[in-house]
Amino acid sequence: MNDSFQNKKILIAGGLGFIGSNLARKLVSLGAKVQIIDALVPESGGNLFNVQGIENQIDIHIADVRNESEISSVVKGQDYLFNLIGQNSHLDSMKEPHADLELNCRSQLSILEACRKIDPSPKIIFTSTRQIYGRPESLPVHECHPLLPVDINGVHKLAGEWYHRIYAQNYDLRVCILRLTNTYGPRMRIKDSRQTFLGWWIHEMIGGNEFQIFGNGDQLRDFTFVEDAVQALLLTAQREEINSQIFNLSGDGPVSLEGLAKLLIRLHGSGSYRLIPFPEDLKLIDIGDYYADATKINSMIGWRPKIGLEEGLLKTLRFFKAHLKQDQLEQHVDATL
Amino acid sequence: MNDSFQNKKILIAGGLGFIGSNLARKLVSLGAKVQIIDALVPESGGNLFNVQGIENQIDIHIADVRNESEISSVVKGQDYLFNLIGQNSHLDSMKEPHADLELNCRSQLSILEACRKIDPSPKIIFTSTRQIYGRPESLPVHECHPLLPVDINGVHKLAGEWYHRIYAQNYDLRVCILRLTNTYGPRMRIKDSRQTFLGWWIHEMIGGNEFQIFGNGDQLRDFTFVEDAVQALLLTAQREEINSQIFNLSGDGPVSLEGLAKLLIRLHGSGSYRLIPFPEDLKLIDIGDYYADATKINSMIGWRPKIGLEEGLLKTLRFFKAHLKQDQLEQHVDATL
Repeated sequence: MNDSFQNKKILIAGGLGFIGSNLARKLVSLGAKVQIIDALVPESGGNLFNVQGIENQIDIHIADVRNESEISSVVKGQDYLFNLIGQNSHLDSMKEPHADLELNCRSQLSILEACRKIDPSPKIIFTSTRQIYGRPESLPVHECHPLLPVDINGVHKLAGEWYHRIYAQNYDLRVCILRLTNTYGPRMRIKDSRQTFLGWWIHEMIGGNEFQIFGNGDQLRDFTFVEDAVQALLLTAQREEINSQIFNLSGDGPVSLEGLAKLLIRLHGSGSYRLIPFPEDLKLIDIGDYYADATKINSMIGWRPKIGLEEGLLKTLRFFKAHLKQDQLEQHVDATL
Repeated sequence: MNDSFQNKKILIAGGLGFIGSNLARKLVSLGAKVQIIDALVPESGGNLFNVQGIENQIDIHIADVRNESEISSVVKGQDYLFNLIGQNSHLDSMKEPHADLELNCRSQLSILEACRKIDPSPKIIFTSTRQIYGRPESLPVHECHPLLPVDINGVHKLAGEWYHRIYAQNYDLRVCILRLTNTYGPRMRIKDSRQTFLGWWIHEMIGGNEFQIFGNGDQLRDFTFVEDAVQALLLTAQREEINSQIFNLSGDGPVSLEGLAKLLIRLHGSGSYRLIPFPEDLKLIDIGDYYADATKINSMIGWRPKIGLEEGLLKTLRFFKAHLKQDQLEQHVDATL
């Protein structure tokens, strides 16, 4: 695979965010010509710190894809378009549904309209989310599981998937969709719990504070280390025979929240947590236990997570400890223009 | 039922359109206090002709519910909110997906946000569409059929359903959802085929022109006469035990397009049609055969269509022949401000 991205033209929409910036770094190392479009939407996780060290090897276009003309100006001639645009906070989507509509629906329509009108040739990889399944009826969750999102963010993410499916069907766009579960690793957003509770736990633990687990700690989740997620993005980009397919990603197995907390504290060397009841607003949109069945992507293109949870958490902790002093946490890890 | 709407406060969002205005007329006759909010969005089917004769018995608020403050100003103190807002053209949604997003998603979020913030007490009846099922995997189509919309309009209509479901779940709104199939009758939009091909057929036939059937004429559809649809709206409004339920409406059985054309011509006394291949853009989003299984609403609240296709078409033709001379067709039946 390593050679096949050499000199390829790559557009990463949302490339200053957590996963997008990790993908950009990998692609730069593979010799690709990487362009990023990112609006640095406040609280979305995008920041220039994420591309420190590669900023002279990439082209960064600070612009908002909700404005179709902005994405239209950069889509032409790309070989691949990694579409990582969106906001991921379930609670924010309930508080500000109109904003979520703009960030997750208008933006996707703009991207697809730009491709349709300007250049339908880039292969598009769209990152969706496990949230579209709602509360799992059975575990592990297969791609055939019913889709019944429990919050506005889930509705809009699913609309994003369907836009891609319909544009592929009607306009011959080459599209592949990945449904991500909890992704973690260096450059994840740890400033608050908007994107993932794990980031906030790390923030609090490194800062010497007790962190909180909502519920009784038995809830199950799976976690994909960001290098594995990036590998899935690159693999799906390359394989033409899987166009229009939808794939779950998974971790290396389910873990309970309390099990995760204990592991995290052991790897850090210190720390403490407290079990507290779910806040009412979060309880309503909580999906209960979730872990994915990722046998489809494994059998079709051979992807499976290679970095175990312990190794991934160690790398993550090492990154944040190396880069952060407590008083620099805010400005360095979620700086926005 | 007739007494139970006496003096009840009713808000009809989209009440100047085809179904909304028929509903308003029925409710006025039952002694309800009817308020209409409608933006008279061009090409949506809303027009003041639809409420001629009852305009002094209703309160008409010409305003756009996409603006949350507009719907907020009228939602307070209503007993029922009939939510008929939206645009229904599948082809328009493919040509102008951003506009469809505004008309079918932003508007719904505004309505629900207004209820949540200002007054969550009105019982809400939301009219969805068979389009959300996509191409039927089996016939007749039951409410459990997979949801796989084939066009942007279908995606946004389904988002509208899910918004209602999520708001009911999270904020205790009382909601009931009806999935309509082809609805027809007096005041339907016949200016073009945007809302339904049947309206356009009637327009052409009355005007003395040949009308066109796309495909081989074998395609199956079912048709609900608007009085039956109105009856379903009123029944679902009244029954508390069916809150949060979703119901299909149906016609009195499937009919082929060519069978419908022949029936229409026989009832009119003259006319002709031609079979032509599907235009490419319509073929891509066509759903093939469709007719609904409406046993759920029949068994739960006793609704079934009472007006057969022949009787309904006769009433429809009688209405348009009485109200229209050919040269008045445009201004009278789809006038917009």
